[in-house]
Amino acid sequence: MNLEPFFKARTIAVIGASRESGKIGNVILKQLMGRAFTPYPVNPSAESILGLRCYPVVTDITGSVELAVIATPAATIPAVLDQCGKKGIHHVVIISAGFKEIGNTKLEKQLQDKLKANNIHCIGPNCLGVFDAHTKLDMLFLPHEKLKRPKPGVISFISQSGATGSAILDLAAHEGYGFAKFISYGNAANVDESDLLEYLANDPDTKVICMYVEGITQGRKFIDIAKRCKKPIIAVKGGTTTVGSRAAQSHTGSLAGSAEVYFGAFAQAGVIRAKTLQELFEYVTIFEKSRVRAAGNRVHIVTNGGGYGILTADAVEHEGLQLAKPGKNLSQLRKNFPPTVVLHNPTDLLGDATDERYQLVLDAIIKDSENDAIIVIALPQTPLLDENLIHVLAAAYKKSHKPIVLVTTGSETAQNLKRKAEAAGIPAYDFPENAVRALAAYTKYCSNC
Amino acid sequence: MNLEPFFKARTIAVIGASRESGKIGNVILKQLMGRAFTPYPVNPSAESILGLRCYPVVTDITGSVELAVIATPAATIPAVLDQCGKKGIHHVVIISAGFKEIGNTKLEKQLQDKLKANNIHCIGPNCLGVFDAHTKLDMLFLPHEKLKRPKPGVISFISQSGATGSAILDLAAHEGYGFAKFISYGNAANVDESDLLEYLANDPDTKVICMYVEGITQGRKFIDIAKRCKKPIIAVKGGTTTVGSRAAQSHTGSLAGSAEVYFGAFAQAGVIRAKTLQELFEYVTIFEKSRVRAAGNRVHIVTNGGGYGILTADAVEHEGLQLAKPGKNLSQLRKNFPPTVVLHNPTDLLGDATDERYQLVLDAIIKDSENDAIIVIALPQTPLLDENLIHVLAAAYKKSHKPIVLVTTGSETAQNLKRKAEAAGIPAYDFPENAVRALAAYTKYCSNC
Repeated sequence: MNLEPFFKARTIAVIGASRESGKIGNVILKQLMGRAFTPYPVNPSAESILGLRCYPVVTDITGSVELAVIATPAATIPAVLDQCGKKGIHHVVIISAGFKEIGNTKLEKQLQDKLKANNIHCIGPNCLGVFDAHTKLDMLFLPHEKLKRPKPGVISFISQSGATGSAILDLAAHEGYGFAKFISYGNAANVDESDLLEYLANDPDTKVICMYVEGITQGRKFIDIAKRCKKPIIAVKGGTTTVGSRAAQSHTGSLAGSAEVYFGAFAQAGVIRAKTLQELFEYVTIFEKSRVRAAGNRVHIVTNGGGYGILTADAVEHEGLQLAKPGKNLSQLRKNFPPTVVLHNPTDLLGDATDERYQLVLDAIIKDSENDAIIVIALPQTPLLDENLIHVLAAAYKKSHKPIVLVTTGSETAQNLKRKAEAAGIPAYDFPENAVRALAAYTKYCSNC
Repeated sequence: MNLEPFFKARTIAVIGASRESGKIGNVILKQLMGRAFTPYPVNPSAESILGLRCYPVVTDITGSVELAVIATPAATIPAVLDQCGKKGIHHVVIISAGFKEIGNTKLEKQLQDKLKANNIHCIGPNCLGVFDAHTKLDMLFLPHEKLKRPKPGVISFISQSGATGSAILDLAAHEGYGFAKFISYGNAANVDESDLLEYLANDPDTKVICMYVEGITQGRKFIDIAKRCKKPIIAVKGGTTTVGSRAAQSHTGSLAGSAEVYFGAFAQAGVIRAKTLQELFEYVTIFEKSRVRAAGNRVHIVTNGGGYGILTADAVEHEGLQLAKPGKNLSQLRKNFPPTVVLHNPTDLLGDATDERYQLVLDAIIKDSENDAIIVIALPQTPLLDENLIHVLAAAYKKSHKPIVLVTTGSETAQNLKRKAEAAGIPAYDFPENAVRALAAYTKYCSNC
């Protein structure tokens, strides 16, 4: 299935374009203007919109049209699809709602027939459509002050729920995550989550694929595509309980099905299940950043706070990882430190730790062969730790062939350290358990590929 | 045990006061100056420090002294305690480290003997001491740019680990939590976590008590005091696994003991266990704000995003709460809404929800007797939701005799809504699961008291 025009089309008809500011057909048209696109407003009752010539019907457009975005009332859609077919448009995104999600199965069936008859691929109906952070193709009809757009990056996100998708996108933008593509696919008339997954699997801009799904329509197809996908797929499933899946049915009409069947399918297909949206964010952080594999599950912890070291060790055991044995290189540092510094694992550099202590220890444990990944805890409240620590961490990360994850908690100093670490490619977390959970998911993924 | 002077002393000796900026004895002295305290610097090798007359020995001070904060080297402490005894000081905080935590049990024993002989209550050694956000008694020797102080409030926090405590305090200040008292008690020479708990149980400034503990020395005493305490006690236990408890032993010398024994004791004593520091924050939010009890575990969910409603319903089942039956008042709203609005539970107000829809539904379900608590999901990305929503929520909360919790996700608009909701007394969370987890803990607490 060729889905390329959904993301890369240059000539785009906006059917249901509107002169009224704030209306869906106005917002979408505006977002296509002043960019690399040629948008064609279509609306029988306007001569021009936003200074562009307006066409009564899509067939009146003289140039070729690669993609139509449709925001007219549900009842008009079958006729609009015939017009699209006549114009030779084979890709449409239908934003409009009012189909099977409100019980209007007759209209949904009509829509399906028209898509088939006219050989049209359709994202939607009842969706937010597509946002491509690289090409800037942006059909989200929510203004930027309501829904921030993330910067270009390597994360793509497929969401069955429009509101969930837009909330996540907005938060992701706020937190500085970089995106490739976002797709809200709504009722999935004939392009479903599996088709989109397949497209993203081959998309050079996408490194990590995230999904929010309530129901998957064709399980076998999904498993096959996911299995072939060489990129991490992180999925949150809505409707994992009796009450949740009942709610899902009235939301997207999805038969959410037994959670166990889904989790089994995810496991079989190598899909990483995030139990919550927060976990999704945590996982994305490590999967997006990591450029080296975890060769095994032996973790070494370096800390300047004993309590944090303990909580991290607890989490390591809890998540099925192992606390690594301290290696030879680490033990040889004994002479460099006061006797109170604990050179076990966790390695406790104590409250008077300096960045030099971190540097010596990191250099040693990167070389030691007893561990596969390193968790660095840096509580910047302690008196002798200063801004130079980020350079020590970045340098260590650069030469490390093992994943390094940072845990840091606190106000501005900690938040700055976190931001700078992430800019240097080091996944960073506020609390031990979140870091360990993400590392465990990453380690498991690495062990399967 | 009278612990009052640790928080309310006015005349305070700083033994080991220093002229050198940044030194512990300098920072602490500075923090006591210009406030309601009379600090007396004690240091044999200075005539004056920061413009204050300096005393060679504490006995040289002419006025009475209620409290001594000691930051001299470990070896000097036994003699210093004799001088304190001679001066009639019965409360000391020993910041200095170098006792049993590094294996120096002989010195720890000497210290214990001196405390006993001189009838002195001691917080520490090897600790950060006390911070009282109301009296401003502040012994934290970390400057404000490293460790922000929280504003005055009703949360008190007892931490066995200094670095963990200060990281949490710093983050709490950053997030706007209000504190009563913070105590880092280190080796607990003769004032332990149970004594502090007893004090806070009777402290009028304290509404919620938080604890980070690795080991509890006198289990029976702790259980008895916790049982009698009429305030919620939320505790994080470090060293719940084999590897974690081994690390705890080299940290605070605590025999972390079997996790099951601890969790059993917590349950018996009515202590709320937070599994992680993040959960501690989540729980504190609801316990600090809530002014009404949850009479039962039946939850009603109102949402403008179907996916979020489903995830919340999943979490409700997962956390052992119940999805409430929709009540009569809610059903009677049918005529007020388009047919697509879902008046079940979750109540889905849809992507075109207005604050008026929220108002009507909240008024109805507050009146309905089928539910005990309400979770409101407001995704502010949707087009028709505006700033007025906060007034609707605040008004609903004001007249509600049931807990109301908000879930909102996204960038500035969501973060603002969250902040304003919390200012209005409504606990607010970024994600469904965190809100439900906190509500479940709160509901359980209410059912036991």
